[in-house]
Amino acid sequence: MRRTSVTVAPQDTIAPVHRRLFGSFVEHMGRSVYGGIYEPGHPTADEHGFRRDVADLVRELGVTTVRYPGGNFVSGYRWEDGVGPREQRPVRRDVAWHSIETNEVGLDEFAAWARANGLELMLAVNLGTRGVLEALDLLEYTNGEAGTTLADQRVANGAPEPHDVRIWCLGNEMDGPWQVGHLSAEDYGTLAARTAAAMKRADSGLELVACGSSNAQMPTFGSWERTVLERSWEHVDLISLHAYYEQRGDDLASFLASGRDMDHFIDTVVATVDYVGRDSDHQVHLSFDEWNVWRQSEFNAAEQAAIAAEPAVPRPWPAAPHLIEDDYRAADAVVVGSLLITLLRHADRVHAASLAQLVNVIAPIRTEPGGPAWRQATFHPFALTARLTGGVVLRTRTDAPSTPTARFGEVSAVDSVVTWDEEQGTATVLLVNRGTTEPATVEVDLSALGASHVLEAHLLHEDDVEATNSAAAPDRVAPHPLAAELGPDGVLRLVLPPVSWAAVSVGR
Amino acid sequence: MRRTSVTVAPQDTIAPVHRRLFGSFVEHMGRSVYGGIYEPGHPTADEHGFRRDVADLVRELGVTTVRYPGGNFVSGYRWEDGVGPREQRPVRRDVAWHSIETNEVGLDEFAAWARANGLELMLAVNLGTRGVLEALDLLEYTNGEAGTTLADQRVANGAPEPHDVRIWCLGNEMDGPWQVGHLSAEDYGTLAARTAAAMKRADSGLELVACGSSNAQMPTFGSWERTVLERSWEHVDLISLHAYYEQRGDDLASFLASGRDMDHFIDTVVATVDYVGRDSDHQVHLSFDEWNVWRQSEFNAAEQAAIAAEPAVPRPWPAAPHLIEDDYRAADAVVVGSLLITLLRHADRVHAASLAQLVNVIAPIRTEPGGPAWRQATFHPFALTARLTGGVVLRTRTDAPSTPTARFGEVSAVDSVVTWDEEQGTATVLLVNRGTTEPATVEVDLSALGASHVLEAHLLHEDDVEATNSAAAPDRVAPHPLAAELGPDGVLRLVLPPVSWAAVSVGR
Amino acid sequence: MRRTSVTVAPQDTIAPVHRRLFGSFVEHMGRSVYGGIYEPGHPTADEHGFRRDVADLVRELGVTTVRYPGGNFVSGYRWEDGVGPREQRPVRRDVAWHSIETNEVGLDEFAAWARANGLELMLAVNLGTRGVLEALDLLEYTNGEAGTTLADQRVANGAPEPHDVRIWCLGNEMDGPWQVGHLSAEDYGTLAARTAAAMKRADSGLELVACGSSNAQMPTFGSWERTVLERSWEHVDLISLHAYYEQRGDDLASFLASGRDMDHFIDTVVATVDYVGRDSDHQVHLSFDEWNVWRQSEFNAAEQAAIAAEPAVPRPWPAAPHLIEDDYRAADAVVVGSLLITLLRHADRVHAASLAQLVNVIAPIRTEPGGPAWRQATFHPFALTARLTGGVVLRTRTDAPSTPTARFGEVSAVDSVVTWDEEQGTATVLLVNRGTTEPATVEVDLSALGASHVLEAHLLHEDDVEATNSAAAPDRVAPHPLAAELGPDGVLRLVLPPVSWAAVSVGR
Repeated sequence: MRRTSVTVAPQDTIAPVHRRLFGSFVEHMGRSVYGGIYEPGHPTADEHGFRRDVADLVRELGVTTVRYPGGNFVSGYRWEDGVGPREQRPVRRDVAWHSIETNEVGLDEFAAWARANGLELMLAVNLGTRGVLEALDLLEYTNGEAGTTLADQRVANGAPEPHDVRIWCLGNEMDGPWQVGHLSAEDYGTLAARTAAAMKRADSGLELVACGSSNAQMPTFGSWERTVLERSWEHVDLISLHAYYEQRGDDLASFLASGRDMDHFIDTVVATVDYVGRDSDHQVHLSFDEWNVWRQSEFNAAEQAAIAAEPAVPRPWPAAPHLIEDDYRAADAVVVGSLLITLLRHADRVHAASLAQLVNVIAPIRTEPGGPAWRQATFHPFALTARLTGGVVLRTRTDAPSTPTARFGEVSAVDSVVTWDEEQGTATVLLVNRGTTEPATVEVDLSALGASHVLEAHLLHEDDVEATNSAAAPDRVAPHPLAAELGPDGVLRLVLPPVSWAAVSVGR
Repeated sequence: MRRTSVTVAPQDTIAPVHRRLFGSFVEHMGRSVYGGIYEPGHPTADEHGFRRDVADLVRELGVTTVRYPGGNFVSGYRWEDGVGPREQRPVRRDVAWHSIETNEVGLDEFAAWARANGLELMLAVNLGTRGVLEALDLLEYTNGEAGTTLADQRVANGAPEPHDVRIWCLGNEMDGPWQVGHLSAEDYGTLAARTAAAMKRADSGLELVACGSSNAQMPTFGSWERTVLERSWEHVDLISLHAYYEQRGDDLASFLASGRDMDHFIDTVVATVDYVGRDSDHQVHLSFDEWNVWRQSEFNAAEQAAIAAEPAVPRPWPAAPHLIEDDYRAADAVVVGSLLITLLRHADRVHAASLAQLVNVIAPIRTEPGGPAWRQATFHPFALTARLTGGVVLRTRTDAPSTPTARFGEVSAVDSVVTWDEEQGTATVLLVNRGTTEPATVEVDLSALGASHVLEAHLLHEDDVEATNSAAAPDRVAPHPLAAELGPDGVLRLVLPPVSWAAVSVGR
Repeated sequence: MRRTSVTVAPQDTIAPVHRRLFGSFVEHMGRSVYGGIYEPGHPTADEHGFRRDVADLVRELGVTTVRYPGGNFVSGYRWEDGVGPREQRPVRRDVAWHSIETNEVGLDEFAAWARANGLELMLAVNLGTRGVLEALDLLEYTNGEAGTTLADQRVANGAPEPHDVRIWCLGNEMDGPWQVGHLSAEDYGTLAARTAAAMKRADSGLELVACGSSNAQMPTFGSWERTVLERSWEHVDLISLHAYYEQRGDDLASFLASGRDMDHFIDTVVATVDYVGRDSDHQVHLSFDEWNVWRQSEFNAAEQAAIAAEPAVPRPWPAAPHLIEDDYRAADAVVVGSLLITLLRHADRVHAASLAQLVNVIAPIRTEPGGPAWRQATFHPFALTARLTGGVVLRTRTDAPSTPTARFGEVSAVDSVVTWDEEQGTATVLLVNRGTTEPATVEVDLSALGASHVLEAHLLHEDDVEATNSAAAPDRVAPHPLAAELGPDGVLRLVLPPVSWAAVSVGR
């Protein structure tokens, strides 16, 4: 059996554990909103039509922020459509998802729902088909004190207090040719700068997120970030990263090592940011505001086929269709846990992140219309990480055997991160075994933290890595107790089966 | 007497006779709509206010498509102004034609009129002063199934079924400094690509026409097409060509050879398209969506004088003024016929064309308010060509004497094209004698087609090439029977007087 | 005592004294409109709420044009907000000045006020956050004859006659990063050209002003003008210059020589205009449409501090706050007088100018709410110049001692300009003594004009150069009679104390 040793020291701090790293994302897409968080006829629906069973799971998941209302959706969206008396709201075509948007849920309902569930709202302005003036209007409607016509409309619509949204996305994936109103880096950089500057004239304390590349495989990746930041640097505070991971064929080993790709992606964007900002006192951080496991190649192939079949078979315009409702396997959950380790280790530069998405659409929570809501396999590593981590992220020294992958070559079989809450006197160790065949014996030397006993120890692992949860078997994949011993030498000892993820909290 | 021989072979096919080659154009300009197709008080007006006498001539003309609502007009147009209850529609200034637009006729009335007369509607979106979102709105209003607010407005406005417009112009003549909102090739190419991509997200089966040059004399001709297509290639299906021809001074010979110019224009655009698309599987065709004879230099001089006289004499803002109501001469009709020959011969690349315009404004049909409608001289070659051609266009080998022109040097005195409808067993030969003094003896060897007898034979020729039609003499210029013999050898023999055009149909 | 001699000849004409050189500026900012020209509850308020005491001073000041409604304000402004029934007008946030705009005063009220006081209106269109179509709408609403929906709205709003605004600003200071919707020179030049071309299609007699640099210290100064003019040349008639002058520390000498800076600024823009227009028959003149003395560095420091304090201390959104209500000193008045001399001397190229602003905001007129209105020190040189000059500006030959300045080195102690109204047989001599210690003995040889007697002679000078006017002492700084002798030799003789400005009119 292979041995892994991990050492930490409390003085070797990377950064605080930003709570915004545990953000999520609700797009007007598929059954994310309608039939997801919102279903008026549902037995658990509250007086506003939001499902209480879903809200309970959202709170249990521990998400901190929620990005809204898109995603690609936002680039064709008029925010005004979603406010005011429901019976007067228009029904619209959404060309991003070829769907019907009823506008039953809009800014005010969603903000109230987010607030009720302790979520910070992260709003996106439409820079695909709208501009500066509409962004200013939305900002005034959202955050303005009563006394102006737009703010008074919000009050009349049932929100007497400003929503006080502090973090805003300047459009969405504007580098993507699929984006409605897609722009060149030059044109987007200019538009983002103009919009951001105007918004900051209204409120200089806003935190504004410029669109980075839609993924690291975009042909413009790198030059996009450079150009956009060169044009908007002084006006923006974060730049976005998006990444989705999937298993190609039966190459589980490479899939498990997805964190390597995320690591490299982050490093590349950091290098670009540092290059552009080399002579500036201003700081721009990273917002990894779309990340998850997603069998995207299946989706892309289906969409291309639907487009190719047109006009012989006109594509339908459904409302709230079943869209990319991936069932997550135990192996997917291990990867999600592993990616959280990667994100935490980059907390010095990554100040916000959003698991995409929250409900039904490639989501940790799934629902049936009129029926139950349940936790997907990926729910668990996220919930454990959000609940158990805190304080600061510590730099770890890891000595681990390697495991082969087709895509990345030899990678460290075990990856880990440790957070340390000095005030509470607790530390949390997150570990992943990316090996597909060998268990890993791990020793984590926590002696420098004065750790004396294990508080909690959870293992995410199924012998059948393809196991999934469902309405019928909602708890097929769930954490198991982990045998983790903390010796008097302050060393935590445990064994990770192959394809597993673990979270262990210790106290002083 | 000079002899011309023409040979054809059925296997030497250029392309199908696209019905869209016989398109027309109705712009909100002058008396094209108001007092043209539409005149509520007229004795022949139907219950919607459209003149039945004009509609009868439109159907007789045989036009297939109708481009609408502009033209330069569209670049300042809000389509919403033209829909809904008439009494609520705004009266607007149209700065393109310095006229008043009452909006009595808009999308729904015009679409109903086009449908009633068997015309396919070709709509233009405004890219001079509007953008992507408005184009999507118009598309949804026009083609959307009931169930969204915009489509339901159309239903409420009396059009329960989608208008199902398949071919759309992405703005109009955006290269022209006269165009409201004129753009550089780079900016227009970007805007056209963004708009087209968004429209195709809604409906990938649409056929979209990018603006090419306003004419082949534009200083940016060639580079405009290249730049626009490089930026929009994958999203557009056709690129437009516009050309107007006129007789300069007494140089009738060069005027008659206008087809040479059109030939060269088409070849140049084809070369540009092929260059840009050299590595692509996607095809971009040509839409010659404005062509005609027009004494444009008179119009331009008058407009410049009016502008120069301002502000001493403020230019008026008339509604439906008499604007460029050219009287067409017999010689003009011969040129129109000749240009149709040219267009048909390029049917492999030119997939659509629009005679500009349909009624009153440089048009084959003229009207008097409260009075008659009549056919201009140019009506006849168009109507004959649209009615008699079909099947496929055949490549011809022509051996003809030449005739001198000041502008083009020696040109072939006779030009011709042959279409062949194998199913019907009929062929149609179109011929023009561009010589100004000599008749032409023509032999067309149709033996390979198995032609046995002449079905119809029409000659367009007046000894007075200046002869025109008018309300008082509506048939002064009209086709005459042509003595055309088809011998047992399958050879068609006829004599074309100078400045004449002929159409002969033969059967098996 | 130092001697200065000035010689003029009637044939050496620079240009007519354009009345538009005595323009002003009213921005929706601070208490310029609200509590300035307009204060419904004020004892002197007319039936429309405008203060009669202020209007009286405006007429006395002799301003000819008034630029409106901004300034930075215009770049976030929707003109529609300011027209129609007051109770339906929206209350808006103005992000340019972080203020609330009630829209109680809008286009129609202001135009009526301007007309009543003999002022020509100079309107600005919003090119920061709006575009061509909105500019055309505003033009139609403002100048259109009744009969279109927009013009009829104006009629319904109480303005039956077109406002007939002839001179329009194409946005405001679009080169400034502070400007809402700030653009690059390329993008602004394109937008200005598109907007101007469209406006001139509606009315070719309009005079359109493109934005030049916000000041001569902008890093893009020069290249901005060149690029903007290269893109818009044929469509624009004037290019703007803005400059504010202030005393740095105790360097009064350099401050008094501010005209040197203005001279150089004008010369540089003239050179740029001449370069761009080298091959054109079209002329582009200069519009110096913001100029004044302003202690701007104090304002900038305060604004930066307020922004830096956010979000800890959210910036307030006041309505009509006290904003840059500088108290002007006697020395400031001398500089204003001196700058008027400079402007007049450049009347061959500078065809319009606007003192910025008119009331309360860095203004010659100040008010107290419910209380008095009074003339600031700078009121006087402006009023005298506007009243006494006329006819043409003559070129002068000046031989004067020099005076040292830290910023400009040695400058001529005395600057002067002479205007000559041949018809009236009167001439006016404006003189400034920029020396800080020495009086100047001046001889102006007017013999060539046939001058025989002094009509008026005014001296602006206080021993205490820091003296200011106030509500309590509204006439502390005011012109004094000047002992000026016109000898039989036609030579005008007078003595200017240090830091003084004088205006002398003579008759034949």
